[in-house]
Amino acid sequence: MADTTITADHGKQEILIERELDYPRDLVFRCHVHSELMVQWMGPRDLETTFTYLEAKPGGSYRFTQRDPKGGEFSFHGVYHEVKSPQLIIDTFEYEDTPQHVSLITQTFEELADRRSKVRQQSLFQSVADRDAMLDSGMRAGIIEGYERLDELLEKLSNEAELRETRRDHI
Amino acid sequence: MADTTITADHGKQEILIERELDYPRDLVFRCHVHSELMVQWMGPRDLETTFTYLEAKPGGSYRFTQRDPKGGEFSFHGVYHEVKSPQLIIDTFEYEDTPQHVSLITQTFEELADRRSKVRQQSLFQSVADRDAMLDSGMRAGIIEGYERLDELLEKLSNEAELRETRRDHI
Repeated sequence: MADTTITADHGKQEILIERELDYPRDLVFRCHVHSELMVQWMGPRDLETTFTYLEAKPGGSYRFTQRDPKGGEFSFHGVYHEVKSPQLIIDTFEYEDTPQHVSLITQTFEELADRRSKVRQQSLFQSVADRDAMLDSGMRAGIIEGYERLDELLEKLSNEAELRETRRDHI
Repeated sequence: MADTTITADHGKQEILIERELDYPRDLVFRCHVHSELMVQWMGPRDLETTFTYLEAKPGGSYRFTQRDPKGGEFSFHGVYHEVKSPQLIIDTFEYEDTPQHVSLITQTFEELADRRSKVRQQSLFQSVADRDAMLDSGMRAGIIEGYERLDELLEKLSNEAELRETRRDHI
């Protein structure tokens, strides 16, 4: 399983995340713009994610809620500045319990050799304090576990695609 | 005329702007969300501004073009994350000649004594290089001249409002 690199330099207003994936960029990008796929991997396993709405296109919006086993609820929303399939997403992000603290997220999707790919994410915060609060919230563990779940989802989707190919060959 | 304070600390990814205005917050806010008012003050005097579209509400979008006397055209667009009348606007901003270089703009509007008000703006950039390129583009002069034009527009709007009041008294 690939490593997730999370960088947060002292005094900066940003968090940088890098992760390689053993699957092609097209498939990885799809998992970032379709709510029925996103709920299967975003965040740690013990949170259940549901979308109120998601329209992943320039000028579109999204809102989702994550529920923990004790009944706690955490909601987030934002707007899409740019969605360019399959290489780029730029959107805003707000945790609704800290209203008006907004970050700008830039995600790029790069093709690697051997049908592999790399995701880079920059989260840009209005202050170093906001950035550090995000780091202290346990986001590192959630991000790492999220990408592990994404690995599993990608494997499942690839197997399903192969199965469809096999069936087609037999018809 | 009030001073415009523009702060860009070394190595930071942000520009901070502060400006006091001799007019009430409600009126100042209106000049930031209605395109027919915005075109009368945004940027330096020698640029003519026209909006392709503007919907200043959460999830809304805008696009505008500025034309110089020599026929040069500069277009910008973004999406609104938050618009809370009369105190807050959070939106994105992209100069279309440098696509995918996006900043996050947070503007707050504060009431001061004597029907005066204060605008604070934070522009947050994806990199220090992007921030410095914006500073080098002559934005300082454009911002300062823009607020001078806003002073003039606010005076005009106030006089018109007073005139309406006077007329009403005479009916």
